[in-house]
Amino acid sequence: MEKKKLIREGKAKKLYATEDEALLIQEFKDDASAFNGAKKGTIKGKGEINCTISSIFFEHLQSYHVPTHYIKNLSPNEMLIKKVEIVPVEAIIRNIATGSLVKRLGLQEGKTLEYPIFELYLKDDELGDPLINEYHAYALQAARPEEIRQIYRTTAKINAILKSFMEHRGILLVDFKLEFGRDDNDELILADEISPDTCRFWDRKTHKKLDKDRFRFDMGGAEEAYREILERISNI
Amino acid sequence: MEKKKLIREGKAKKLYATEDEALLIQEFKDDASAFNGAKKGTIKGKGEINCTISSIFFEHLQSYHVPTHYIKNLSPNEMLIKKVEIVPVEAIIRNIATGSLVKRLGLQEGKTLEYPIFELYLKDDELGDPLINEYHAYALQAARPEEIRQIYRTTAKINAILKSFMEHRGILLVDFKLEFGRDDNDELILADEISPDTCRFWDRKTHKKLDKDRFRFDMGGAEEAYREILERISNI
Repeated sequence: MEKKKLIREGKAKKLYATEDEALLIQEFKDDASAFNGAKKGTIKGKGEINCTISSIFFEHLQSYHVPTHYIKNLSPNEMLIKKVEIVPVEAIIRNIATGSLVKRLGLQEGKTLEYPIFELYLKDDELGDPLINEYHAYALQAARPEEIRQIYRTTAKINAILKSFMEHRGILLVDFKLEFGRDDNDELILADEISPDTCRFWDRKTHKKLDKDRFRFDMGGAEEAYREILERISNI
Repeated sequence: MEKKKLIREGKAKKLYATEDEALLIQEFKDDASAFNGAKKGTIKGKGEINCTISSIFFEHLQSYHVPTHYIKNLSPNEMLIKKVEIVPVEAIIRNIATGSLVKRLGLQEGKTLEYPIFELYLKDDELGDPLINEYHAYALQAARPEEIRQIYRTTAKINAILKSFMEHRGILLVDFKLEFGRDDNDELILADEISPDTCRFWDRKTHKKLDKDRFRFDMGGAEEAYREILERISNI
């Protein structure tokens, strides 16, 4: 399977067409960005690390019957995926309060939430990916009511699976972002990636941050943190 | 019934204790504010106009079995109300896109929404009354799940009643904000006010703004607009 035309270049990934209409190649880059693109940089080796981490998570979720766009890895930083129409909504689940929950809503940093908080954001760089609710999603024709319900149910299921998977490896799944796409049958499947770029991971004992917050807040050691996540989830 | 101790002074109203533990007096002021208090001013006669408008709406809603905190008017700008514990959440329904829907989400100004948009905002001046969803409300212990469900149902019912009431008077109910409180039996009842301070009203034919947007955006004629709303809803 070879890369044909570049279809889309995002902040952290490139998407290429293939000879098969229904399949794309997702290439993971070392480029890192934060604060809606205001901060830019590079994390050495991130493309390969995130591609591998994502494939491990996708395979694990598929073993729990969560449909995803993942087919197989083609190289250390290239993944063969099903072509989908991305739903322009980001689904976020938060298990521990940090980031915008603390800044916007005054919740206590590091507080374990009794019930996970589910959030929707509109995928729109120009508008700065604003927080929305389901009624906004309908008015914007971003998603249909049954899709939002399915996104919520699937995200909650994925949270339960990944939280337990990470806890067994000494890592707290603080929060994470998912994207979904419509396949050929108009069914929603999990798309994008699952990596330290899109999840917050804290060491269970020390609460050391093992995710993009190291880059976001210039904490140093981003590459090592990403590698540590890969190592911990590789040893099963 | 006489005013005793001042309990709370807000931007547009004062609340006084009475000799009856269960009752308060709500006094409407001429003071106007916008943009979370950044803009301040006065609209002549607003206190009396909004008190009267609110009482007309509260009585109309009560005739449709919507429980409210309203008991009776004591003077042109004073209202006797039931004492409640305010739920620190603002419920907003939008029928036509304007304001933050246009600015934050890029919806088309003046577009009639196929389905009303329901929104929750946290009542917190320091945080700037941020947009939240129901999961935030639970985590912040602002409201319980059954309360949010009731707020949604009651707000939708009030929207249907008031939209029709205003349409018969040549006015579009563009959007509005409601607040709810817990009474002695821990039941939710409608509180606060319903007025051109808390609703957007447009003339059905000309789309002339008849609400606080005239003050917010220095359009002039705020007092006349408030009086026009009062006149139109007084002629039944």
